[in-house]
Amino acid sequence: MSIRLRLRDIVESTETRAGRAFDWLVVGLILVSLATFSIDTIPDLPAAVHAVLRVTEVIIVVLFLLEYLLRIWIAERRLGYIFSFYGLIDLVAFLPSLIALGVDLRSLRSFRLVRVFRLLKLARYTHALDRFRAAMRRSREELLLFSFLAMVLMWVSAVGVYYFEHDAQPDKFASIFHSLWWAIATLTTVGYGDIAPVTAGGRFFTAVTLIIGLSVVAVPAGILSSALTDDRRRARRDDAERSE
Amino acid sequence: MSIRLRLRDIVESTETRAGRAFDWLVVGLILVSLATFSIDTIPDLPAAVHAVLRVTEVIIVVLFLLEYLLRIWIAERRLGYIFSFYGLIDLVAFLPSLIALGVDLRSLRSFRLVRVFRLLKLARYTHALDRFRAAMRRSREELLLFSFLAMVLMWVSAVGVYYFEHDAQPDKFASIFHSLWWAIATLTTVGYGDIAPVTAGGRFFTAVTLIIGLSVVAVPAGILSSALTDDRRRARRDDAERSE
Amino acid sequence: MSIRLRLRDIVESTETRAGRAFDWLVVGLILVSLATFSIDTIPDLPAAVHAVLRVTEVIIVVLFLLEYLLRIWIAERRLGYIFSFYGLIDLVAFLPSLIALGVDLRSLRSFRLVRVFRLLKLARYTHALDRFRAAMRRSREELLLFSFLAMVLMWVSAVGVYYFEHDAQPDKFASIFHSLWWAIATLTTVGYGDIAPVTAGGRFFTAVTLIIGLSVVAVPAGILSSALTDDRRRARRDDAERSE
Amino acid sequence: MSIRLRLRDIVESTETRAGRAFDWLVVGLILVSLATFSIDTIPDLPAAVHAVLRVTEVIIVVLFLLEYLLRIWIAERRLGYIFSFYGLIDLVAFLPSLIALGVDLRSLRSFRLVRVFRLLKLARYTHALDRFRAAMRRSREELLLFSFLAMVLMWVSAVGVYYFEHDAQPDKFASIFHSLWWAIATLTTVGYGDIAPVTAGGRFFTAVTLIIGLSVVAVPAGILSSALTDDRRRARRDDAERSE
Repeated sequence: MSIRLRLRDIVESTETRAGRAFDWLVVGLILVSLATFSIDTIPDLPAAVHAVLRVTEVIIVVLFLLEYLLRIWIAERRLGYIFSFYGLIDLVAFLPSLIALGVDLRSLRSFRLVRVFRLLKLARYTHALDRFRAAMRRSREELLLFSFLAMVLMWVSAVGVYYFEHDAQPDKFASIFHSLWWAIATLTTVGYGDIAPVTAGGRFFTAVTLIIGLSVVAVPAGILSSALTDDRRRARRDDAERSE
Repeated sequence: MSIRLRLRDIVESTETRAGRAFDWLVVGLILVSLATFSIDTIPDLPAAVHAVLRVTEVIIVVLFLLEYLLRIWIAERRLGYIFSFYGLIDLVAFLPSLIALGVDLRSLRSFRLVRVFRLLKLARYTHALDRFRAAMRRSREELLLFSFLAMVLMWVSAVGVYYFEHDAQPDKFASIFHSLWWAIATLTTVGYGDIAPVTAGGRFFTAVTLIIGLSVVAVPAGILSSALTDDRRRARRDDAERSE
Repeated sequence: MSIRLRLRDIVESTETRAGRAFDWLVVGLILVSLATFSIDTIPDLPAAVHAVLRVTEVIIVVLFLLEYLLRIWIAERRLGYIFSFYGLIDLVAFLPSLIALGVDLRSLRSFRLVRVFRLLKLARYTHALDRFRAAMRRSREELLLFSFLAMVLMWVSAVGVYYFEHDAQPDKFASIFHSLWWAIATLTTVGYGDIAPVTAGGRFFTAVTLIIGLSVVAVPAGILSSALTDDRRRARRDDAERSE
Repeated sequence: MSIRLRLRDIVESTETRAGRAFDWLVVGLILVSLATFSIDTIPDLPAAVHAVLRVTEVIIVVLFLLEYLLRIWIAERRLGYIFSFYGLIDLVAFLPSLIALGVDLRSLRSFRLVRVFRLLKLARYTHALDRFRAAMRRSREELLLFSFLAMVLMWVSAVGVYYFEHDAQPDKFASIFHSLWWAIATLTTVGYGDIAPVTAGGRFFTAVTLIIGLSVVAVPAGILSSALTDDRRRARRDDAERSE
């Protein structure tokens, strides 16, 4: 067996021991990379920490580059891999940082933020995203209908509270878009408290809106949640039927 | 086939291609109209934007007027359409704005707000409202009982917290109606934080109220939510039975 | 048929037309009484409104007194009625206010608050309370276990956040009881924002607590909610079985 | 029967009357201990209360010591008990306080906090913890998957809001870790309001995050809640099947 085929067994398989080890190595690198990215944003870090973070970043970028080249080399259809979803993700994971190693990092903040997309490399190793997409697809019609209903309700709430509160708090409920922010924070029950009605009319309107709105706004989340956990119930039912 | 019958096929049908195109055109107009209405409330817009918004509004009003006249002309029973729910909605969608085109818009703010009712024109094209009404009807008795229970609980919470907090915060818990606002914001778990108990008694009372109240206040929303999504489950069960 | 028997048919029956009319009259009186009680707490009411409220209160007290005497007169077992739950409620509904008509109302605030108990007179006319009690009884064991678990969790959260935040905010997290207030407002997701952790340790602890705690604290409310709506599902299932 | 065997019947059994009385005594002691611990943290307590608390603490420590010695004496396998989970808990319940009785309590705050672990002594008398652990075990895979998804979502929200808000509020959204605190408070709908987006971009991002995020973040809590109450449903179904 050639080295290329052996390496393919390691890199692309998840069933051999070496394959799993390679996967864990890449997952570990991704997590370390995301951690250094997060730590990097802490203000007033000592210079030593910055140095460590920068070295770590260089090492990670080089390793991701090597992984990319390796994956191209061992791929059955090389162009197929390069232009696949995972191929592009693997490229985005190191290319901007590689370029940025030459240029000064501080000038282009968005270049640094591109590092977030390394998260997508994780998609290869977890089925969470598949499940999310499957749940979305399965309940799409319902989701669309109730999301539309929820949005209409939020918009109506925003218009209503704008009508009642604009004169009393012209800076907080400055426009319907400002009121929409209030409607979202209120109907999801987050309630930051940065914007809240103060007039009797606005408060009464809020009360009525909340009583009707909570049931409507909760529906899309409920549909998606139950679609996400549906597989489990289905699997259980199948198990139960099998065991009968 | 006369022009009138042909137009009826376009305007009232949703099955022909031209009919669907006409529907999408009206829906598009409604959404554009609601968007301009919202943008119009943003303070300190440049004069150019205001001009564009005003021209858009005039065009929309004229188009809604033409649509109204068209619908009257093609209707089988003309008076029947004029005094139907949709006929009145179609009238309200342009009449106030048409009058306001002559008069100065700024003087009569409520005239502008009437534009919100254009949203109701959407009711012709979505089944969301039907479903909402069906859900309401199906669970009416339960909804009434538990909404009553929730309101009683909120009122009792308001009286209780008024009793504990009025002396400590006479401006915030000024009356039972002020306390009711607190009760609504608290028992729906929005919790703006503009009014909150500070005395030990008020806080203990709030704790007890929350522990009992959350389960009661959540019930009407839960009933309505599950009634809204009932059709789906019923449809699924029917499918399952059919496929057996 | 004697007058007494005829009156009993009106006062105690809910099946005759006169009986239902009498019931609605009493319910109306109770609601008016609770409304005047609430309005009475609004500060700086004009003297005219106060006069109207006072006259209304006198009329209601007299009518409740007459209702009480009537119910004693027509009762089959008079002492039985007087010492029954409803008999005592009917007495409490007017006695303190009757006494207060002589004395100055302002001096004894708690006397005024006793008017809240008129709400209990409603219990005769609604089954909401019965249902609440039935739900409590049915799920008592579960409710106790999970309420206990929820309380332990809240206490542990309070101790933990006290440990992390006491030094940073000695006035807000002054004692474990202050922290308990925070724990209740947080784990019910009300989140007033009057007390919130500021240290890294306190915030990390809050995050962990929330992720574990939300699922535990939500359980008692969920049990009670589903017990409250159980009857409905049971009734539906019975209907479905009957119709098969 | 020897005294040792008789005592074992009292201390270790929950079926004899004396056994239950002993259990209730220990549970009572634990609760009193936790209460005194909580009261002890209230600032500016009168000296008399402090004296009472200190005496109570001494009595409790001595009683826990006696209980520990008693349990060792009656244990079938003494070393087995000493190194068991409950043996270590029983030791921790009095040892630090016993040592602290000699030394000045105020110097070592963590010594006082060790008293919290007396709560674990309750584990012997309630099945709540068993149930919690069983629920965890039963739904472990699902919990891990969705907790991971929830964490990823929170991290992405934190990065996104950091990107939008860092320039506008550099002190509040100082780093991704500061943003994570916001993400946790927001996606659990607690919404303290200490940190909230103010830019249009940040608010729009928050709206989108909330609409998607609420359904994802609610899933782990929902799984755990339903796993916790599963036993009940299973028991009911078994009952129903038996009675058929």
